[in-house]
Amino acid sequence: MSRLVCVGGSDAGIAAALRARELDPGVEVTVVLADDYPNFSVCGLPYYLSGEVADWRDLAHRRRADLEAQGIEVRTCTRARRVAVAEHRLEVVGPAGREDVLAYDRLVLATGARPCRPPVPGLERLGPEQGVHLLHDIGDGRRIMADLEGRRPKRALVVGAGFIGLEMVEALRRRQLAVTVLEARPQVLPALDPELGALVAETLRAEGVVVRTGCRLGGLAEEGGELRVEVLEDIGGTRRPWRATADLVLVATGVAPDSELARSAGATLARNGAVRVDRRMATGLPDVFAAGDCVVTHHRLLGETYLPLGTTAHKQGRVAGENAVGGDRRFAGSLGTQVVKVFELVAARTGLRDPEAAAAGHAPRTWAGSADDHKAYYPGARPIHLRLTGDRRDGRLLGTQMVGSRHSAVHKRIDTAATAIHAGLRVDELSDLDLSYTPPLGSPWDVLQVAGQGWSGVASQ
Amino acid sequence: MSRLVCVGGSDAGIAAALRARELDPGVEVTVVLADDYPNFSVCGLPYYLSGEVADWRDLAHRRRADLEAQGIEVRTCTRARRVAVAEHRLEVVGPAGREDVLAYDRLVLATGARPCRPPVPGLERLGPEQGVHLLHDIGDGRRIMADLEGRRPKRALVVGAGFIGLEMVEALRRRQLAVTVLEARPQVLPALDPELGALVAETLRAEGVVVRTGCRLGGLAEEGGELRVEVLEDIGGTRRPWRATADLVLVATGVAPDSELARSAGATLARNGAVRVDRRMATGLPDVFAAGDCVVTHHRLLGETYLPLGTTAHKQGRVAGENAVGGDRRFAGSLGTQVVKVFELVAARTGLRDPEAAAAGHAPRTWAGSADDHKAYYPGARPIHLRLTGDRRDGRLLGTQMVGSRHSAVHKRIDTAATAIHAGLRVDELSDLDLSYTPPLGSPWDVLQVAGQGWSGVASQ
Repeated sequence: MSRLVCVGGSDAGIAAALRARELDPGVEVTVVLADDYPNFSVCGLPYYLSGEVADWRDLAHRRRADLEAQGIEVRTCTRARRVAVAEHRLEVVGPAGREDVLAYDRLVLATGARPCRPPVPGLERLGPEQGVHLLHDIGDGRRIMADLEGRRPKRALVVGAGFIGLEMVEALRRRQLAVTVLEARPQVLPALDPELGALVAETLRAEGVVVRTGCRLGGLAEEGGELRVEVLEDIGGTRRPWRATADLVLVATGVAPDSELARSAGATLARNGAVRVDRRMATGLPDVFAAGDCVVTHHRLLGETYLPLGTTAHKQGRVAGENAVGGDRRFAGSLGTQVVKVFELVAARTGLRDPEAAAAGHAPRTWAGSADDHKAYYPGARPIHLRLTGDRRDGRLLGTQMVGSRHSAVHKRIDTAATAIHAGLRVDELSDLDLSYTPPLGSPWDVLQVAGQGWSGVASQ
Repeated sequence: MSRLVCVGGSDAGIAAALRARELDPGVEVTVVLADDYPNFSVCGLPYYLSGEVADWRDLAHRRRADLEAQGIEVRTCTRARRVAVAEHRLEVVGPAGREDVLAYDRLVLATGARPCRPPVPGLERLGPEQGVHLLHDIGDGRRIMADLEGRRPKRALVVGAGFIGLEMVEALRRRQLAVTVLEARPQVLPALDPELGALVAETLRAEGVVVRTGCRLGGLAEEGGELRVEVLEDIGGTRRPWRATADLVLVATGVAPDSELARSAGATLARNGAVRVDRRMATGLPDVFAAGDCVVTHHRLLGETYLPLGTTAHKQGRVAGENAVGGDRRFAGSLGTQVVKVFELVAARTGLRDPEAAAAGHAPRTWAGSADDHKAYYPGARPIHLRLTGDRRDGRLLGTQMVGSRHSAVHKRIDTAATAIHAGLRVDELSDLDLSYTPPLGSPWDVLQVAGQGWSGVASQ
């Protein structure tokens, strides 16, 4: 009988635990997590906060009892303090400060990430009581909800127009708050090309959101029951300050790996602080694996990078769990596939954008255009805007971005591109794919094939 | 200056013409077609007949003027009578019986298919005037519409519950006709496994359609302004006849290749009469290519077969057109990917089903189950029913079938499976794919990955 301990009760830690038990019903598995929310879908928080999900408890992927029924011991409200690597022991501090030591044969560190708090004067003194929030875990979500229902704020400022920022913009608009979103970079959704970000900004504005790009938080103070915000706007390289007021401020400016436990145990960290792991998710420390938002991400086109995503955490956790019980699985690598619904629009990407590809040594060329989601004669056809990047030296598909209606299956069309990139297909092979067609749902050449043919046209010039 | 002649003005012929002109603006291209409808989407006819597309002219992929603007000469109502292979000449009979001879350097035969007329007593004497229809070309569609609007039939019998039969069932129900559908095989949509066909039958019945499987047309007669139908029902191997009446009968029981022109020119035919071509779409006759519904289909998992589909015709035509102007492109092969919308349901398949795979020498194993289209906590989640077939010897993905709501992106989820099969992925590699996820539109493990993990579970037993 061997013992596996997983530190972290979110996607990676639970995936590791489940996979280990699936493959080896004899392994004893304990999951240790710092909070009281094992196996929750933190990605669902914006939909709880919008009111679309009535009860935060419904955000659980599985309930604690389901995990226990799988033979997994779950220790909530338990902080992992130290790994004694040579002794194969994990020191923990449980509820009410109770110390304990867990012996393990294999350890999976899935300690996740921490939300970034930008170094803004005043921010460090303000928190949920004053209406200043981060959104990273279920506890954050419950605090925001308590604030929304308690103080009933009317004006919200969201700092950061990335994926989570925009989901929260939509959630707060659904609750009828006046919403302003600040983004330091020149466009919303900076993970996509500016032309597609502009389409998203258009939708935001049509939904009544005030969108301010090139703007960062300069200072924050509470005064007379409202939040006084100083914004620094970048106008041609010079910073123009302006002021705003809000009842609620949400900071969504990214995350940093939470790797302190691994570091103190002697694990090697990457420059950004993420735990270095190999493709088997091994840390190099004996019998210690790591997975999820606390580790570096192997990217199929970039090599080692850092791209914390739930899908990746599930995959890495599954690999770590398999290897922890004697398997030999390798994480196949991320392509940075991401999708977000912003009101009625869906924006998605996979692989590399042109500048990313160039920086990685490719010779990228990008085709941009649009094609209808289905035959125009059938009612309801809508354009999908695409950008397709390939390498003009070897013709390989490097990346695809799409923006379209939430009814246009953009989220699953990007998956075809992701699968093609995974398989190393050339752009001109996209037209060889036997993709489905019926007039109400598609065209004889799918939009991705239209883009591929367009790309081949420009690449040969 | 070289001369290309394409015989056939539907998907394959036009695709060949367009591709040739795209690659070689110097080539003279003439398209010869027997009817007056160049480059129409015959797949759109059910939606014209349902009333969703107001004007049949809107079914054109491109208008004649668009083709001419691409430098393509279009000769409508012109029948190709004979190919003089050695002389590189095509004899045609144009409008008003005018004979002509077209010289060519390269010829593309894209003569398509003919609808099957089952050998049913009485059927040969009945036609559109009596309310008995086939649906294969735009002329058929216009005749059905004239009948629907003229005689205003109230009771329709559709013979054949394949893709086109079911699209027409929906179209006629939308027009408020009482509809009965007969299918000789024991299930509707026989291209899918019976368990999935049953879900489609359930939807048909819920929409008020009378579904009779194991039933074939035994005889047909017109009497007193209505159609008297004899049906032969297979009950445990014995045929029980029963009678029905209808105002309109639509026969949709498949097609056969129209290869007479090629045969008479000396081309080799497969057993079903389709023109044998190589992967370059060459017939073996000097400078004669063929593509579309008149030729055999190279299937990536089956080799030579016959699977006439619009998507395939486009691809084959494009290959033929490229090679006709000196290219060296190969048709990459079909996977038999098909999708159909049946009222609010979508059914799709790609690759092989279990019995097809076994017949082709694989060692198939099939997993069946369902998974939600997106996280259950977000409103509107619906199950997608999947069947996934892999080879238990080498683990390769062989086929996937799905049935789900038209709002669940089934049509584009099947494309991920098609791309994975195209690339030769193993079932367990599906979980490596970096597919998109956001709670309103998906799950951290996509339904295809859930199915793949399920399959790996049963395959290892």
